[in-house]
Amino acid sequence: MNNFIFQNPTKLVFGKGQIARLAELLPDNINLMLTFGGGSITRNGVYDQVKEALKGRNYTEFWGIEPNPRVETLRKAIQVGKDNNINYLLAVGGGSVLDGTKLIAAGIADEMDAWEIVKQGVAKRQIPFASVMTVPATGSEMNGAAVISCDETQEKYGFSGSYPQFSILDPEVTYSLSEYQIACGLADAYTHVLEQYMTTPGQSRLMDRWAEGILLSIKEIAPAIKENPKDYDLMADYMLAATLALNDFIRMGITQDWSTHQIGHELTALHGITHGHSLAIVMPGTLRVLKEQKKEKLMQYGERIFGITQGTEDTRVNKAIEMTEQFYRSLGLTTRLSEVGIGKNTIETIATRFNERGAAFGEKGNVTGDVTREILLSCL
Amino acid sequence: MNNFIFQNPTKLVFGKGQIARLAELLPDNINLMLTFGGGSITRNGVYDQVKEALKGRNYTEFWGIEPNPRVETLRKAIQVGKDNNINYLLAVGGGSVLDGTKLIAAGIADEMDAWEIVKQGVAKRQIPFASVMTVPATGSEMNGAAVISCDETQEKYGFSGSYPQFSILDPEVTYSLSEYQIACGLADAYTHVLEQYMTTPGQSRLMDRWAEGILLSIKEIAPAIKENPKDYDLMADYMLAATLALNDFIRMGITQDWSTHQIGHELTALHGITHGHSLAIVMPGTLRVLKEQKKEKLMQYGERIFGITQGTEDTRVNKAIEMTEQFYRSLGLTTRLSEVGIGKNTIETIATRFNERGAAFGEKGNVTGDVTREILLSCL
Repeated sequence: MNNFIFQNPTKLVFGKGQIARLAELLPDNINLMLTFGGGSITRNGVYDQVKEALKGRNYTEFWGIEPNPRVETLRKAIQVGKDNNINYLLAVGGGSVLDGTKLIAAGIADEMDAWEIVKQGVAKRQIPFASVMTVPATGSEMNGAAVISCDETQEKYGFSGSYPQFSILDPEVTYSLSEYQIACGLADAYTHVLEQYMTTPGQSRLMDRWAEGILLSIKEIAPAIKENPKDYDLMADYMLAATLALNDFIRMGITQDWSTHQIGHELTALHGITHGHSLAIVMPGTLRVLKEQKKEKLMQYGERIFGITQGTEDTRVNKAIEMTEQFYRSLGLTTRLSEVGIGKNTIETIATRFNERGAAFGEKGNVTGDVTREILLSCL
Repeated sequence: MNNFIFQNPTKLVFGKGQIARLAELLPDNINLMLTFGGGSITRNGVYDQVKEALKGRNYTEFWGIEPNPRVETLRKAIQVGKDNNINYLLAVGGGSVLDGTKLIAAGIADEMDAWEIVKQGVAKRQIPFASVMTVPATGSEMNGAAVISCDETQEKYGFSGSYPQFSILDPEVTYSLSEYQIACGLADAYTHVLEQYMTTPGQSRLMDRWAEGILLSIKEIAPAIKENPKDYDLMADYMLAATLALNDFIRMGITQDWSTHQIGHELTALHGITHGHSLAIVMPGTLRVLKEQKKEKLMQYGERIFGITQGTEDTRVNKAIEMTEQFYRSLGLTTRLSEVGIGKNTIETIATRFNERGAAFGEKGNVTGDVTREILLSCL
């Protein structure tokens, strides 16, 4: 096991009716700004619950953070924040609203342009922020990371910084999600786990088991949710799984491979593919191309997640990759670039970009632009 | 899933050589007191590493916190702390040193007598504290709980309060532990997991999987550690397992049953049985007596941990309990009261105590003094 430092200070407030706790969770004497997406929360009752909980408080509202939040929008929010001396943010919405809010928190605390903050990779200063998370997917509610898009340059990058002070997760708010949103959320969470897990086995037996525990849980609940997307316990398991899939709990002392996310971000930046969907397309390709390097872990994964114990090593590894693609398809997602109208031109654009940037992703740093081309060609 | 609030702010600093980080982890301008056990750390090199890391700092030392730390000793430490205006504590040692330090932190911050703080169950004020943890077992390095003994009344109680600011865990310091210490540590961690897990299945599929993940890991590493107690990766897995077994990570939104600990504390208070060993004796008894109530979870546990899939429900449940007792024995511990010289008199004393206190332990609150008698009689 590698040395590591772990600290996750976010307070998780989980369960039905918990939005009502907002008043006690927020500090007194703050200049609060609420940040929102496009308005779905006005239709599912969340906005009303938040308003009710904050009755008697003053706050500013900023609406319109879009999916794959754009720095162009966030710059406006930063200006509103600065104009109103905002010193605390509450994101109400899904991962994009929260990711955007993390950058707003940095932009208000810093003189630097928001895109420069993203490109430097780390926010050195941020005002405190918290969330009411409504879409289980990104894990942003309990981690220090955010991913931001830039329209102007068609780029999408992540940066890291502070963790939310608290996040409220009420599984009942997920009842209004569409089948596609749930499919993408489950794919996102499943892929987060794979990217922390799919390297070499036994670096930590326990981290392996915990990653597999999330994978098994998601695999078990996914078909049941399709049948009954308003089952509280199912949605609670889904919501908790998405949080625990990316809050540092399953990556203590181990190597990771985030190639799939890096490649998926490009598909989103260039073609607007929904994040979780992009991962469902890329992950099987990453596994196909890197299967020799990841063979031992793929064997363990195949056995423990899909019960694959028969056949030669090669057969078992191939079967594990097939089952992974099949799992994404079972969610209702397509898994091939041709199915979303993406062809060789885009692949070449991404490969060239990565080669120019000197990309070296993956646990061995060997996923370059050229390897990315190979991965994407296998996804056609 | 039940509603829950989770927050664990402890910074975990894990790996070889990490004690050297002490200087950067401790705040400046504190009045620091170091707390120690009986002196084993002077023989295994830990004390020297700590001294080296703190070169140039002033600090007070308090030596002599014993296993099952006694309030009589801790009162002395509190007085030393008050006399020296101590405002930060660093525990260097095992779970007993850290548990004792949690009470010292409360006693320094409060005017109340230390035993009164324990008996009220919650420390309302504590000065900050941190740890260099040398014995993987109690999880005290990353939780808010402590267990304290009182010589005068032969009682042993837990209380809760703040979490350590940080804990340094270097698996290399475990190389000097005795076989018996390791056996008791593994038994303690395994039992912590069972007490959060062994109720009813599926309250959270994910919490079930994570608990099982720790159990499987401990079951896998235990025999390997016997063969090679200086294998770094094995000891790292053991150390991390002990921490994650009791730091709130596996009890989100679920019911728990801490009867075994409550009963085990009595065996320690009355006969000085080492904590982990007391659990190895009591846990199989708790399962035997409560097996109807816990049947479904015992079936899941038997299948997922020991591969028990054949036979009637009763056969499978009994087999799972037998395998649990056998696991404790495989560590090198005895599992019967008669083997440690305890008989019916002690059982009667404990049953009477529990009945007098109105004990109602377990997930259903039905483990009274009378049920405890039954449990202990089954452990003779």
